[in-house]
Amino acid sequence: MKLTILGCYSATPRTLNNTTSQVLEINNHMFLIDCGEGTQVQLRKHKIKFNRIKHIFISHLHGDHFFGLVGLISTFRLLTREADLHIYGPKGIKEVVTLQMKLADSWTNYNLIFHELTSNKSELIFEDEKILVHTVPLNHRVYTNGFLFQEKEGDRKLKIEAVEAANINVAYYRKLTQGFDVVNEKGETIKNESVTRAGLKPKSYAFCSDTMYKEDIVSIIKNVDVLYHESTFLEKHAHLGPKTKHSTAKEAATIAKLANAGTLLLGHYSTRYDGLNAFKEEAQEVFDNVELCEDGKTFEF
Amino acid sequence: MKLTILGCYSATPRTLNNTTSQVLEINNHMFLIDCGEGTQVQLRKHKIKFNRIKHIFISHLHGDHFFGLVGLISTFRLLTREADLHIYGPKGIKEVVTLQMKLADSWTNYNLIFHELTSNKSELIFEDEKILVHTVPLNHRVYTNGFLFQEKEGDRKLKIEAVEAANINVAYYRKLTQGFDVVNEKGETIKNESVTRAGLKPKSYAFCSDTMYKEDIVSIIKNVDVLYHESTFLEKHAHLGPKTKHSTAKEAATIAKLANAGTLLLGHYSTRYDGLNAFKEEAQEVFDNVELCEDGKTFEF
Repeated sequence: MKLTILGCYSATPRTLNNTTSQVLEINNHMFLIDCGEGTQVQLRKHKIKFNRIKHIFISHLHGDHFFGLVGLISTFRLLTREADLHIYGPKGIKEVVTLQMKLADSWTNYNLIFHELTSNKSELIFEDEKILVHTVPLNHRVYTNGFLFQEKEGDRKLKIEAVEAANINVAYYRKLTQGFDVVNEKGETIKNESVTRAGLKPKSYAFCSDTMYKEDIVSIIKNVDVLYHESTFLEKHAHLGPKTKHSTAKEAATIAKLANAGTLLLGHYSTRYDGLNAFKEEAQEVFDNVELCEDGKTFEF
Repeated sequence: MKLTILGCYSATPRTLNNTTSQVLEINNHMFLIDCGEGTQVQLRKHKIKFNRIKHIFISHLHGDHFFGLVGLISTFRLLTREADLHIYGPKGIKEVVTLQMKLADSWTNYNLIFHELTSNKSELIFEDEKILVHTVPLNHRVYTNGFLFQEKEGDRKLKIEAVEAANINVAYYRKLTQGFDVVNEKGETIKNESVTRAGLKPKSYAFCSDTMYKEDIVSIIKNVDVLYHESTFLEKHAHLGPKTKHSTAKEAATIAKLANAGTLLLGHYSTRYDGLNAFKEEAQEVFDNVELCEDGKTFEF
């Protein structure tokens, strides 16, 4: 699981600060999460192949999370993309993209499939053989979702010596890795656990931005390996949190602790601060394993 | 008159190439012309004060000329702008900007005044004491206008010795600079030309992008001091001009020659070419005074 931070600052793009966008590489998927203005240039800068992006998740329709989307869609068209593109985001996202294509008389020659979100409850929005994606309803000034990406339980691994000793026909090995009990060549039932062990631990990543402190997301993201939680403010501006519906670094850490997250990633910093270290320090008063996002940084888990 | 090229490439923003946007500084105005994605970052990079921009002219609603507009409007809001902002552009521009503000629940706290254009004839769209702006209807795949910015004839200058010798009361000097004849202290009528000379020659700038070769713009931009004319292609791709409704460098030069322009600026280059020199060379086969736009370049006239 590899995460590339294309931008992690709030409000407006600046010469050295990009607004929110991330690429999550997980199980051969390249998921783009949020798409602030300039995201397509950031993708080029980090040499991410445009064609590998087939699913884009937009948390909410504030500009710093979404003003780069229509440009990216348009560039895909100019690059003669053919693969389907799925867009997950709040209701309205289809209208605004479609209106701009209509005004430009520039329709895509690939399928653009919108999955508009309206629920205030967590829901499954993507599933394939290996991955699940659920929404994480957040509390911001407009309708906003975070996203939880989870690998499914992987195949079990055969304990080869035990399998051979149990006289199991090779034809049943696939069933074993799938977790089933099987019957051996003597007609005996062999318990799966006696001849297999658990496969790789499935990984999970939760993206939670933008939101004020919202404790009821904890049950949705419980035990997540990596949690990105916005931390717009430091403690000295904590009073701005409820007003602007953003969080402090300490609040992000509290969510990470309650959710028993493996690692907390901080981002969506207000540009009013000079450096980022104070974000980490304040979060670590509550939760140890904290990392700071920075534009261009990659994390491998 | 100072022109700053924020971006001058066609199609899509890239790591080193920005799409169309220019700032024209003329008579204390700071006119923004077109606004591709990333324009707000380019404005910051070139230290152009956001507050000085009060009029934005959008030629057409293709992304490379306009996808940065909503982000700029939104950033003005975050910077607590108070001054009115006038937007001139094709019909539809108001709807698409307004829809995005509605979806983000982020209305501006300054006045946003749209001047939607629909005419296929050149029309006066802005006038104050010193400046005129007319549209220059172009021929592109969607409804498109260029813009002609003209200083008005400036005040006449007094020939001080002649004025004094003619016994004219100081109270009439303003009338003289405005071009009127006046009566002197002896009751004689003094012809204006006998005591004044012409003021500074008024400057003009025409922005023509995007368009295929369109000869009937020549009468509108006749004798313009500086003509920016798009030159997407070199001669070897001239056959793509009519299909995509773009021009070659040579066609741009032909327009400049017919219009008796002072200087021709080329831009809106296709990114398929390695360097820009060939654009200049091909244009100079037809018209001598050719300059190449490049991102970040400024011209003073």
